[in-house]
Amino acid sequence: MIRPSEDQEYYELLTPTALPKASGFLWNEKMMIHVNCRGYVVAQFMQPEPAKYSHAPNLEAKTFMQPEQPYYAHHPGRFLYVKDEESGEVFSAPYEPVREQADQYTFAIGKSSIVWRVECKGIHVEMSLSLPREDAMELWRVKVKNLSGAPRKLSIYPYFTVGYMSWMNQSGQYHEDLQAIVCTSITPYQKYQDYSKIKEFSDKTFLIAERKPAAWEVNQEVFEGEGGITMPSGIRDQELLSKGDARYETPAAVLQYRIELAPGEEEAYRFIFGPARDEEQVAQIRSNYLLNTNADGEDGFTAAEREYDRYIREGRGRIEIATPDPDLDNFVNHWLPRQMYYHGQTNRLTTDPQTRNFLQDHMGMSYIKPQTAREAFLIALRQQNANGAMPDGIILHKDAELKYINQVPHTDHCVWLPICLSTYLDETNDYSILEEKVPYADSEQTESVFQHINKAMFWLMNDRDERGLNYINQGDWCDPMNMVGYKGKGVSGWLTIATAYAFNVWAGICESSGHSDKAKEFRADAQKTNEVVNQYLWDGEWYARGITDDNVKFGISTDREGRIFINPQGWSMLSGAADQEKQSKLMRAVTEQLETPYGVEKLAPSFTSMREDVGRVTQKHPGSAENGAVYNHAAAFYIYALYTVGEKEDAFRLLRKMIPGPDLEDIVQRGQLPVFIPNYYRGAYRQFPRTAGRSSHLFNTGTVPWVYRCLIDGLFGLQGCKEGLQIKPQLPAGWKEASVKRDFRGAELHIVMKKVPGLDAIEVYADEVLVADGILKDLQPDTEYQVLVNIPDEI
Amino acid sequence: MIRPSEDQEYYELLTPTALPKASGFLWNEKMMIHVNCRGYVVAQFMQPEPAKYSHAPNLEAKTFMQPEQPYYAHHPGRFLYVKDEESGEVFSAPYEPVREQADQYTFAIGKSSIVWRVECKGIHVEMSLSLPREDAMELWRVKVKNLSGAPRKLSIYPYFTVGYMSWMNQSGQYHEDLQAIVCTSITPYQKYQDYSKIKEFSDKTFLIAERKPAAWEVNQEVFEGEGGITMPSGIRDQELLSKGDARYETPAAVLQYRIELAPGEEEAYRFIFGPARDEEQVAQIRSNYLLNTNADGEDGFTAAEREYDRYIREGRGRIEIATPDPDLDNFVNHWLPRQMYYHGQTNRLTTDPQTRNFLQDHMGMSYIKPQTAREAFLIALRQQNANGAMPDGIILHKDAELKYINQVPHTDHCVWLPICLSTYLDETNDYSILEEKVPYADSEQTESVFQHINKAMFWLMNDRDERGLNYINQGDWCDPMNMVGYKGKGVSGWLTIATAYAFNVWAGICESSGHSDKAKEFRADAQKTNEVVNQYLWDGEWYARGITDDNVKFGISTDREGRIFINPQGWSMLSGAADQEKQSKLMRAVTEQLETPYGVEKLAPSFTSMREDVGRVTQKHPGSAENGAVYNHAAAFYIYALYTVGEKEDAFRLLRKMIPGPDLEDIVQRGQLPVFIPNYYRGAYRQFPRTAGRSSHLFNTGTVPWVYRCLIDGLFGLQGCKEGLQIKPQLPAGWKEASVKRDFRGAELHIVMKKVPGLDAIEVYADEVLVADGILKDLQPDTEYQVLVNIPDEI
Repeated sequence: MIRPSEDQEYYELLTPTALPKASGFLWNEKMMIHVNCRGYVVAQFMQPEPAKYSHAPNLEAKTFMQPEQPYYAHHPGRFLYVKDEESGEVFSAPYEPVREQADQYTFAIGKSSIVWRVECKGIHVEMSLSLPREDAMELWRVKVKNLSGAPRKLSIYPYFTVGYMSWMNQSGQYHEDLQAIVCTSITPYQKYQDYSKIKEFSDKTFLIAERKPAAWEVNQEVFEGEGGITMPSGIRDQELLSKGDARYETPAAVLQYRIELAPGEEEAYRFIFGPARDEEQVAQIRSNYLLNTNADGEDGFTAAEREYDRYIREGRGRIEIATPDPDLDNFVNHWLPRQMYYHGQTNRLTTDPQTRNFLQDHMGMSYIKPQTAREAFLIALRQQNANGAMPDGIILHKDAELKYINQVPHTDHCVWLPICLSTYLDETNDYSILEEKVPYADSEQTESVFQHINKAMFWLMNDRDERGLNYINQGDWCDPMNMVGYKGKGVSGWLTIATAYAFNVWAGICESSGHSDKAKEFRADAQKTNEVVNQYLWDGEWYARGITDDNVKFGISTDREGRIFINPQGWSMLSGAADQEKQSKLMRAVTEQLETPYGVEKLAPSFTSMREDVGRVTQKHPGSAENGAVYNHAAAFYIYALYTVGEKEDAFRLLRKMIPGPDLEDIVQRGQLPVFIPNYYRGAYRQFPRTAGRSSHLFNTGTVPWVYRCLIDGLFGLQGCKEGLQIKPQLPAGWKEASVKRDFRGAELHIVMKKVPGLDAIEVYADEVLVADGILKDLQPDTEYQVLVNIPDEI
Repeated sequence: MIRPSEDQEYYELLTPTALPKASGFLWNEKMMIHVNCRGYVVAQFMQPEPAKYSHAPNLEAKTFMQPEQPYYAHHPGRFLYVKDEESGEVFSAPYEPVREQADQYTFAIGKSSIVWRVECKGIHVEMSLSLPREDAMELWRVKVKNLSGAPRKLSIYPYFTVGYMSWMNQSGQYHEDLQAIVCTSITPYQKYQDYSKIKEFSDKTFLIAERKPAAWEVNQEVFEGEGGITMPSGIRDQELLSKGDARYETPAAVLQYRIELAPGEEEAYRFIFGPARDEEQVAQIRSNYLLNTNADGEDGFTAAEREYDRYIREGRGRIEIATPDPDLDNFVNHWLPRQMYYHGQTNRLTTDPQTRNFLQDHMGMSYIKPQTAREAFLIALRQQNANGAMPDGIILHKDAELKYINQVPHTDHCVWLPICLSTYLDETNDYSILEEKVPYADSEQTESVFQHINKAMFWLMNDRDERGLNYINQGDWCDPMNMVGYKGKGVSGWLTIATAYAFNVWAGICESSGHSDKAKEFRADAQKTNEVVNQYLWDGEWYARGITDDNVKFGISTDREGRIFINPQGWSMLSGAADQEKQSKLMRAVTEQLETPYGVEKLAPSFTSMREDVGRVTQKHPGSAENGAVYNHAAAFYIYALYTVGEKEDAFRLLRKMIPGPDLEDIVQRGQLPVFIPNYYRGAYRQFPRTAGRSSHLFNTGTVPWVYRCLIDGLFGLQGCKEGLQIKPQLPAGWKEASVKRDFRGAELHIVMKKVPGLDAIEVYADEVLVADGILKDLQPDTEYQVLVNIPDEI
């Protein structure tokens, strides 16, 4: 039912009726497209805010991406109806809307293309989707082949949904001269001041055909008739589509080709679908992609596919692994870096990413395109206030503004600066970034990055109550319980702990960059903070999540719901607050109360009703990202913390639950293909087991760089440091060996790790020479190294 | 295909496949429900802003009511699937979602109930919907009868859609103790400040069953399965629904009853569907409506239906007519006052009605519940500024705010005060309202209504340029061309003319209330204004619509699009600006350029592209309400103007196009049942004939009181005045006689109008006594009068 293709370039699903519906995604520099195995599609492009060119059949709310989006008959999609002209039989590829059971079906999700292959009633249909690198448009190839022994007369109908574009103005028509359907709309506005913006929008949707169609339809209602979308009257009852237009009627883009295929004969088609400003632009696209060819005789369409594939391949990671776990290998070598690259390249298709997301996404980009990460850190610091505070979101476009949750003040953003920067430094050793001078948002004064981050740390140090606990205001990370501290008194247990961790990380950077005085200062405060944490937040078996404005401690053993939160536990191991005894206790509590077959939950039990002193999280549905799901981002931190304290078996067990496979069927059942880690799997496992484990379907998540750090810093122990590369693997007990190709500062390391019985400690050999402290130094760029790591079999 | 029922209480449509889909509506004091013949439904209730309890399958935008709303497979609706347990055959009533052709089908739209009768496969299904008077909920009766000669084993499945309630939280389950499905959600919010509002919302949707079901389903995806909404797997493949719940899954409310019916046997069911705050409220509703009975042994459900019917019948008009035109009679006697009543009673289910709408809606209410109209005028005047300016919208709830178009400054609101008040005075003679003292929005000072309106008139008099033309700012009525005058210089031709008319009307009221000095002043200014209008706006054959900030006159003969606008033409006859010659010219221009088979268009030719000096109207789709539709509100004014100048044949021809019938089939084809006048029929008739004439489906419109005034003041000439009732009919040439029962200030007049050959002038006899001036004076309340009106046959 689900398998990787032979070349491991694709994951192939062999039935479209898996519930919930498996999906994958492509993106480029302007757009994102999320497709599912049945043919339903959600696509967005930037203009500059996210916009759609293929809409729902009714007015859609403008909102951020929603999890677990339900599908319905008229959900936007890309379909191909096939009608046998002689028998009148109709089926559709990939599966929707006719839902005819195919004889053979494959949904193949690749890194730079997505392919469906459907065999039904003796006809083979292949549909494949790719994108160009820079433009917002879909590149489609469709092939239709006669597999039966007799000649066949067919009509095929590509149907690209356009939907309800605008209440203000929408229409559509076929343009002979463009060989294209162009649908027109005007984004609704009421204040004349908004006109200057909307007049620049790409409010048209086009479908360009390479081959001239026999007929077309642009009017959804006329096309569907009483047959409905599952058996359109235009197909069932008419020889030819009626070549209609849409005038303030819901537009659709449907073409008809009539073909006669001898046995074994195949016809091929290409289409381009996307948004445009005007007909001239459509004409331009047609000539660039379909009419003109380059010196090699290749047209723009084919060149764009090739260029896009190259672009996606640039997003490779820093390790290539071969372990006893092929699913892990496949995911880590192919898909995990792709998901990190997506984040770093697109900034989640938002113009105001949350500050913590932006920093972590570029922490991940440090492994792929460190120069991009470097620039991102500087962009973020330019938006810091001179008092050290970081804003809730980073503005990436001149017209952008802080939206949605970014209008709610959160107190944790400064914490992420040293944490994310440390990975960049580990990977690149580029300490020059600390000397870069950048201004503040509210001051012309420029100061070095080093000074900026010092100020951020002092801001955290000062934003505390008399006990030394950090204020939470209306929320911190993971996630806004918006009523804990809005009166200005409530504090966050996690944030206080995270502050101690951030101070320690920053102290390390200070040391490595010759600021040992500052290092001492921050280490001292981190220690003091840890003491305060233990004094006020240790609940006996685990740490509390916080204390409200009215001095009510929560996330504690006497709470009926929200009794334990994962974040204070893992981070207390990172910060050093938890000693050995506390670590044992809290790990046991996590295992007993938060671990599920799908990973560790963020909190448990999920809130099922409102607690007014805690707020919003308690109104989220139980098992949602914020209310007790296996929120992978938080779970990844916990795993990272386990590696940090050497709890490698627990760490690996939980890591393995997060990464798709080994039970691929199970992951498909839960709603996705094994090509990305979703932001959550539904939790509330002990309360609502029926729905637990389902994928959110959302691929935007800070999880991925942390999983990568778990692999680099933890599992394989190949973390960079000031001196070079420190080798300290923590392979799980079940593994006898593993090999890793590690790109590091331009050098290429071929590392073989082996469990050796009777060994006392890890031994590292570089080109057969023993490396005493396990740190490979003086690695030269453009040089290959053979590294052998012997590991005591007992650990 | 369409016919009135025998008792004229219903309009009956005999096929559900008319395109576009015919619809009707019910409302009460808390809600509005718009249903179509196929079973699709849009319902809203107030909490205090309009909200939904039956949603689309995806996130819907929050917006004002949209015209020509498209339907799609999963559109919200109320359906009943019927499955023959022996043959496995399934059909659905009323028509959707299965779309099985029925043997007999009736969709009967009544004033206080809506009924579907469907006969299919030997089974008769009747579904009927009513509302209670005050609560937001639907009262449903369902009857299933075996018409075949043999016993039948059936399962019936009422399916009430719930849809995508909220991304924050949604779930649903069946409650044994309530015999109800209750779906729960939380309106999304992000700022804690909004919590106090949303916590009060009725965010639950319930379906209470009178009879205990055999099974149920609350999970839409489980219910539909691969069969989809047109043949749900839960029905097709299962003996019993699986009794599931929805946990952050799209909820549905589906019940299953298994019944065995002998030949001729019938079973009856009742259901209540609507929003609730909590389960306790659902329990309360169940006990009030279904469990408890009153002294007469009647339960709350039946009592509520009866009370609602009485409530709707209270909304009767002031005339009851019998003419040679039975469709006109039916509409005027039954449906027109109902639509006026709806407006006056609900204020269009908004908390901030546009000021001009609010005033005109209560102008209509003057005919039905004058006390309500009186209060409304005072509410509006309390929101006037002390400088005389009226706000863009009237706030009706403490939490309400000005939304959408009410945030765009318009300059016409003052005009409506005397115009609307005059009808109230004509009808009631209650001049005491002029002495009521009310405050201003921005001042504690209270002044009489008389002074308030004087100030409004002076505000208009001063808001003019040096030529004496009224500024348009970002828009005036009908409708905002938002860029004509936003720089502060552009002027409105229509508004200047309307000001002259308003001054004349106000002068009349001043005279009748003993303020002849003021009367003189306003009459003089009206005359001066008319002169200015003729100087600057007469274009040779008609009046221009306005002059832009950059001094460009528009709505003139040299314009390619937007060459002529209806409003300056009709109003110039009302204001007195147009002399006989100009009247002839402009009427000819209207006939030639604006009249269509569906009425007169608002402007022509429709704009098909943007004219940046005019603005928004040019971005509306051609043929929309604002851009060249037969906008009935504007058309009604033109007809009113024609009656005012005695052009009774033209007036009647156009009036007859607006009122449903005589070609009822045609009106159904264009998208509605003849139970309301929509705000527009699509125009751009000469540009886009295919779509011209279609109904907007929107029943919110200021048209209706003006049509009523056309009937009262014009066609039947039965307008009130200071002295009494002035009788001055303008029957069309084709009519030989007509009779009217006229309620007037408590008296009941039985009026017979007869064309008499050879007569010189109209003769009026009251109780057989000739009334010299045609004005019936000293009419006594609670007294009946027999009135005979002889009309010269030649006129």
